[in-house]
This record gives sequence, C-alpha cells and structure tokens, in this order.
Amino acid sequence: MTTWLEPIALYTDLYELTMAQGYFKEGKSEQRATFDYFYRSPPFGGGYVVFCGLATLVEILEELRFDNDSLEFLRAQGFEDDFLERLKNFRFEAEVRAPAEGELIFPYAPALQVRGTLLEAQLVETLLLNLLNFQSLIATKAARMRQVAGDRALVDFGLRRAHGFGGLHASRAAVVGGFDATSNVLAGMHYDIPLSGTQAHAWIQSFEHEIDAFRAFAEQYGDASVLLVDTYDTLKSGVPNAITIARELRDRGQSLRAIRLDSGDLAYLARHARAMLDEAGFPEVKIAASNNLDEHVIRSLLSDQNAPIDIFGVGTQLVTAYDDPALGGVYKLATLDEKPRIKLSDSLRKMSFPGNKQVFRIRDTHGQLYADAVAIEGQTHIDRIHHPHEPHKETEVGHLDQTPLLKPVMQKGRRIAELPSAFEARAYAREQLAALPPEHRRFENPHIYKVGLSTALRDRRDQAVDQARERIRAKK
Amino acid sequence: MTTWLEPIALYTDLYELTMAQGYFKEGKSEQRATFDYFYRSPPFGGGYVVFCGLATLVEILEELRFDNDSLEFLRAQGFEDDFLERLKNFRFEAEVRAPAEGELIFPYAPALQVRGTLLEAQLVETLLLNLLNFQSLIATKAARMRQVAGDRALVDFGLRRAHGFGGLHASRAAVVGGFDATSNVLAGMHYDIPLSGTQAHAWIQSFEHEIDAFRAFAEQYGDASVLLVDTYDTLKSGVPNAITIARELRDRGQSLRAIRLDSGDLAYLARHARAMLDEAGFPEVKIAASNNLDEHVIRSLLSDQNAPIDIFGVGTQLVTAYDDPALGGVYKLATLDEKPRIKLSDSLRKMSFPGNKQVFRIRDTHGQLYADAVAIEGQTHIDRIHHPHEPHKETEVGHLDQTPLLKPVMQKGRRIAELPSAFEARAYAREQLAALPPEHRRFENPHIYKVGLSTALRDRRDQAVDQARERIRAKK
Repeated sequence: MTTWLEPIALYTDLYELTMAQGYFKEGKSEQRATFDYFYRSPPFGGGYVVFCGLATLVEILEELRFDNDSLEFLRAQGFEDDFLERLKNFRFEAEVRAPAEGELIFPYAPALQVRGTLLEAQLVETLLLNLLNFQSLIATKAARMRQVAGDRALVDFGLRRAHGFGGLHASRAAVVGGFDATSNVLAGMHYDIPLSGTQAHAWIQSFEHEIDAFRAFAEQYGDASVLLVDTYDTLKSGVPNAITIARELRDRGQSLRAIRLDSGDLAYLARHARAMLDEAGFPEVKIAASNNLDEHVIRSLLSDQNAPIDIFGVGTQLVTAYDDPALGGVYKLATLDEKPRIKLSDSLRKMSFPGNKQVFRIRDTHGQLYADAVAIEGQTHIDRIHHPHEPHKETEVGHLDQTPLLKPVMQKGRRIAELPSAFEARAYAREQLAALPPEHRRFENPHIYKVGLSTALRDRRDQAVDQARERIRAKK
Repeated sequence: MTTWLEPIALYTDLYELTMAQGYFKEGKSEQRATFDYFYRSPPFGGGYVVFCGLATLVEILEELRFDNDSLEFLRAQGFEDDFLERLKNFRFEAEVRAPAEGELIFPYAPALQVRGTLLEAQLVETLLLNLLNFQSLIATKAARMRQVAGDRALVDFGLRRAHGFGGLHASRAAVVGGFDATSNVLAGMHYDIPLSGTQAHAWIQSFEHEIDAFRAFAEQYGDASVLLVDTYDTLKSGVPNAITIARELRDRGQSLRAIRLDSGDLAYLARHARAMLDEAGFPEVKIAASNNLDEHVIRSLLSDQNAPIDIFGVGTQLVTAYDDPALGGVYKLATLDEKPRIKLSDSLRKMSFPGNKQVFRIRDTHGQLYADAVAIEGQTHIDRIHHPHEPHKETEVGHLDQTPLLKPVMQKGRRIAELPSAFEARAYAREQLAALPPEHRRFENPHIYKVGLSTALRDRRDQAVDQARERIRAKK
C-alpha cells in the first residue's frame, strides 16, 4: 500500500524549500528566528477559537526527515547538491511554545511560537498552518454544538463528507471541541475515541421486510441495538416495528438502546416517536437524530421546540465546518538574529507584532476570562493594554490575575512532556469555555474579547513601523 | 513515522463493519449486490459536477486488507472470531463501473456502480463516498475558475488552508478541474503536477532592505524569479525595486519572470504595476495575483476591470470549496440477489432507482450535451425520457446520439486498464465542458440539465414504490 502522506516532509509549499535554499546559500539559514502563529478573525461569526492540532504537529515534527526519495525528487526539481546535503541531515531541533490543546485563543495574540534556526522554522510553516488551522476550526465548530447540546450525546458521523484524508483529524478535533464519540473507526483506533454506529438503509433494504431487518440486527447486537426507522415510513412502519423488537428484547431480558431518525421533520417525528415509545412502555429507549444538523438546528430543536432527542449524529456541518470552512491562521517572522522584524501593510490590521513575546491571560476577580495581553518577552506584569489597531483605546489590567499562555512544548525538537489525549484536551476546553463570559460565547454578534498590547510592545511596534516607512521614503 | 492512514481498511464508518458482520451471520454476505453512487444537487449553485477521485479509489481498493492490527482492534470492539476470520481473507473482488475522471456528471444519474458481494460492496461505502465526494467537489470548483480564467495560468496555493491531510487530493483534483500547477510538493511528486512557488514575506523581512531580498533571490533563481512586492509598499517600494532587479537580470542576459501582488486592491495595483513595468521597458514581466480569489473575483478582475493579471494563485476558496464545502453524494443499494431494491421516502426526490442500470449520454445534432437517460441494464436505445420526480414531464430522445456512460473500470477487484493521469483527466474534462451548452455552465441560475428515466425504468420504479407501500399497509 502506498503510504500516501509520505514523505511527509514534502507535504509543504514549494516556496518553503525555495526560501530555505536561499537562506542556506546566503549563509543565513542558521540564524536564530522566531515565528508566531496567530489568526485575525474567529470563524462562524463567533467570539473564540479552540486551539487544536498540537499533538499531531509535535508527533510529525519529531520525526521529520527528508528521505532519499524526497531528496531525489527535489534534485529533479533543480535544488542543488549542497542544500540537499543539508536537508539530508535535517532534524527539527527548535523550541515550540504554545498553550495546551483545548485552550481558547483570540485574534492577533500569538497562539504558538517556533524558535529555532531560520531554516527549520521556515520549513515547517505550511505543515504547521495546515494542521493547526484545520483542527482548531473543527474543534471550534464542535464546541459551538456542545454549547447548545447540554449533556446530550454528540456523535461525529461526518467521514463520508470529510475532505478526503482530512477526516482522520476532523474526528479527533471534534472530540477536543466536545464530541463524545465518532463513527470513524481509524480515528477511534488512533485516538482512543469511543465508536458509534448503527445500520444504514441498505441493511433494512437487504431484507424482505423492515421488521426482519430489525429483528436480525437485534438478535446479534442485543442491548447495543439502535434501529434506523425511516427507510419506508417512520411513524407508520419504523417506530411500530421498533416497538415490536423492543418487546422481543425485553422478553429476553435485554433492552433496545435507541431508534434513529434520519429524515423528515425531526422535531415532529421525535415528539410522536417519543409518545409511541412511552405509551408502549419503553421510556428508556432513546431517540437519536441525524440529517444536516448544526449548532443552530440543534438549538432550535432543543430550546425552541423541546424535541425529545437524546443523541445527535452530526456529519457534514461538523467535519467541513460548513458555514466557514477555513481558519485563516498565519505564521509570521517576528525576530531574526535577535532583532525584531515587522511586516508592514496598508492596514494596521495586517501588520505583525515584532520581537519575542509572551501572552498573558487576564482573569477578572471572579476568575472569568477578561482579556489577553500581548507583551514583550521578559515583562512579568502588565499594567495597561492598548487596542492593537485603535490607538486611543486602552484598559487598566494591573490589578487583575495574569497567567502566561505560551509554555514550552518542545525543546531541541523533542516534546518535553506527554501531550494530553483528545479527551484530556476536551476536559480542558470545557473548563475554559465555562470561564468565558456568555457574551463572548453567544452566536449572534458576540462581544469582542479584549486582546491588547502592553505599552512596551505597542511602542516597539510603532517604532518599527516608523523606521520601516522611513527606509521606504529614503530609498525613493 | 506513523503511517497515518493505515490500516486504511479502517478509514470507514463503524456501521459498515457492523452491517458486514450482520450480513455474514445472516448468511447474506455473499449475495450479489449492486450499489449506485450519485448526487442530488450540484454544488455552488452550479449546473454540473466534474467526476474525480476514481484513480485514488481504485488504487486503494486493489490493496484493501485487514491486517493484524486492524483485526485485533476490531476484536477489542466486540467483533466475533468467525467474522474476523472472514475479514482476514477479505479482498475487494467486485466490479466497478464508472465514467472516466473528468467526465461531467449530473444529479440523480448513477455516476459509479459497485457490483459484487453484499459484504464487499457495503464495506467500501464510506471510503468511496469520502474520496469521490471530496475530489469531485474540488475538481468542480477548479473548473468554475478555469471557465473565467481563459488561458491564464491557475496555480493552487491552498495547502495551508486545506483540511489537514485532505490537501493531498485537493491539489490533484484542482488539476483535473483545470489548474496548471500547485505549490504542494507532495502532490507534485505523487501526481506529476508542475510545482510553483516564489517567496513569502518572511524572506523579504529576513533582509535589511527589500531590494537586498529581491537581489539575493534573483541571483539564485534567475529566470525563474517571481518577486513578492507587497511587504512594505507595493507601488512605492516593491514594484520600483522589482524593476531595478529586472534591469540587473537583463544585464546578465536573464529575465525577471513575474511580480506577485498579495494584498490591497488587485485591479488597481495590477494596472499601475503593469504601467510601471511597461514604461521601464519590461512588458514581458508577468503579474501574478493572489489573496482570496475565487471564480467571481477572477471574473470581475478580468471581465469587469480588465486587470492585466497573467497568473492567479488560488488558495482557500479552491481547496476548501469555500462557499459550498461538501458534495452530498450518496451510495444506495439498487439490486440484491438479482432483485431490484428501493429506498422509499416521504419525498420522491429522495427515493432511489431500483435495479441494475446504465446511463446514456445524449447529444444533440451539433454534438452538444443534451440530456442523460437512466435506463434499465440491457436497454440499448432510449426513445423517451421521463422527469424522475415530475410525472407529466417527458422528452423524446430517440432521434439523438446516445452513448453509455458507465464502463467497467475494475473487474474481480483489479483495474482492467491504466487509469488516466491527472493531466489526461484535465484534458478530458476540458473537452466535455466545451460540449456543455453555456446555459448549463453559467454561474447565475444555470439551466437545469435534463436527466430522465427511460420508460421501462420509470415503470419499474413506480411499481416498486407501490409494492413497498402496499407492504406497509398490509402490516398494519
């Protein structure tokens, strides 16, 4: 079998390699560099992002190699011998600082830093963006569904609509954001996620009568049986047949676990199916629903319509992040050879913050998340934060609790501690979301969470902008 | 390195395995079955889908195995010994019928069939849907961009926003839809796609002055140099510096290939940059543009604004299919044990067409695509087609050219001929699109392409519906 993603060192944009060779030829490749990963705008019109993808990234970075196949391919692309020799010995030996997976991250505040040689920090850009952008996007989508689902079960059914091989990590990220289980067997195996699944319409159709299909399934799977009731007619055929099977299971000392609705008006069908099940004496049989669910539909079903649904199977909208399928995280050079660097732009919003930095999470006196302060590395306490793009806006934060967010995760290219599992990250995300005031969590025009610069960083940024502009004027 | 997608036989929904064990225990797993793959609604509000993903699917199906790791994992999930023994010997040995990659496919007409044992045909469902839905989606998005780009270069820059490992096949599908090159090195290596890439802002920032960064790059890459001109100020700094470098290259007998615009108003900047380049005597230096492009922006730049852009670098909108990131293709049982099967639904639109079928592509007297006829297998010529959901609508087609669309691709689980490369599929797609009347290609409310049932199939479908409904009534 072709191992599709190998050599994974080539799962990158060509220009990372073109630049790497350039740095090498210029004698700059071993200069010390810091790159920041951050995003500018939360997806889904929401107020936060759940940080995810770090475990995958670390696992790949530890093993990143240019094998002979990849070197031969690059040689055929015109890369030169001395550079290929350097790549042959390449190991990722940089430091990575980041919060734990499941942390909430906010616009413009660096969510991850790579500190190493210019060569290694540049080479990993595309892979890092690919993994963090996608997994954080899906974890965030999942968290929004968890917000409205309360403690009802959320199950990922999305693999058939996932973007090819992206489905593997979609299922993991869904758990970090708050899902309970997945239908994706490989993700279950790799990431220790409980598996869930019933039967498709094909199973029902493969029998002469629906009741025969139900009976055969229940005979094999007993207490684990979930019956799909919409193949022919949900209320006239599916639910009555499921009740018959529930009786047969009860006679054998077993219990039907659930029925599944997969089409039609879910609120209407759930209410009627619930009534039929209850009347027949099966209040313990749960109702699972699937079919184009997202956080808005789930909220409507539960809050507006009081639909008696216990288990939500979510597919397309989850694994594709349907209404906003990309997180625009970027990776910008902040420091080179110990000197702060900046990227200008016509817009202050697209400029980067120069130099090595730390981010402080600031909590209010009730322990709720209040603001993030982006500071110059070495600052230990921040008195005041400044809006990054609106010079007159500032906030006093000196009296509040402040915790650094970026902590070493890898040193010399190796993880320095075990990384949390998907379920550990899920528990952490849940804690953080509980501490995020509801006005930042709401779906409609959420209140923007404050992210500000320390006075020292603000001054450094402004000076760097002035100097760069001065240079442009001088050259004219 | 973990080989992430292995064992790929487990890259599936749990229920495929649950059902497979069920069929096995019921003694049905070796019954002959036919499943149809089709979709119901074209993405992006468009009028067609470019079929893509077959090569990946065939390659995986040929090698599909349940290795010891996967069997052990399934055992731990409660699967039983006799079934696991059957899986251990599992090989995909079915027949697959499909059009060539790059073919245009339309709603409701089966675009692929699997004919084999119920076990094998069921087991591959999720993988098949995952691969075909995604790659066809991206190929279709790419084709829409090609429609408006004329013969200008289209380059895929999307890997950093692609859905994790899904980026590999996104780059391939982009070529099938009409792209020329990719930045994705691994896709270039696996699928023989020309690579493209310049430098990032980090390269520019890593030098004291922009001109130094340009000069160092041009010294190394000569004629292949594309210079990113927006790091500090596009028209005041980037373009003048690029012109200086173009002169230096010319003095050495070389030529600057292009400049790249990556922010700001692309039409405005392209026009001014073009004028500056022309005036300086460099009409041959091309202009590349990137930054949130899609088919609508490209059309606006070229048709409405006459922007002198030669190369479009497209990222997010392409590889995520941003405005409609899922193709809802489904896989339905059509025949079991030689008998047609149907899935009912409250809506005629969600019912499947029972039995083994062929699809005829019908062309008008000018050779343009006119309609598809879905027929019962064995029919050789179709006189009349009937709208699948509106009983009174029918069209005479007996006088028109008819070609069968579904051809054997795999027999006994092996491909029966070499599959076309990505670029061969691209050429085929281009031919088909040229034969699709413009009213089906347009972006705004495209005219719906006719897909109809032969009279015989329509009658079979209606009878199957009546019989199934009769059974439901009889059981009450």
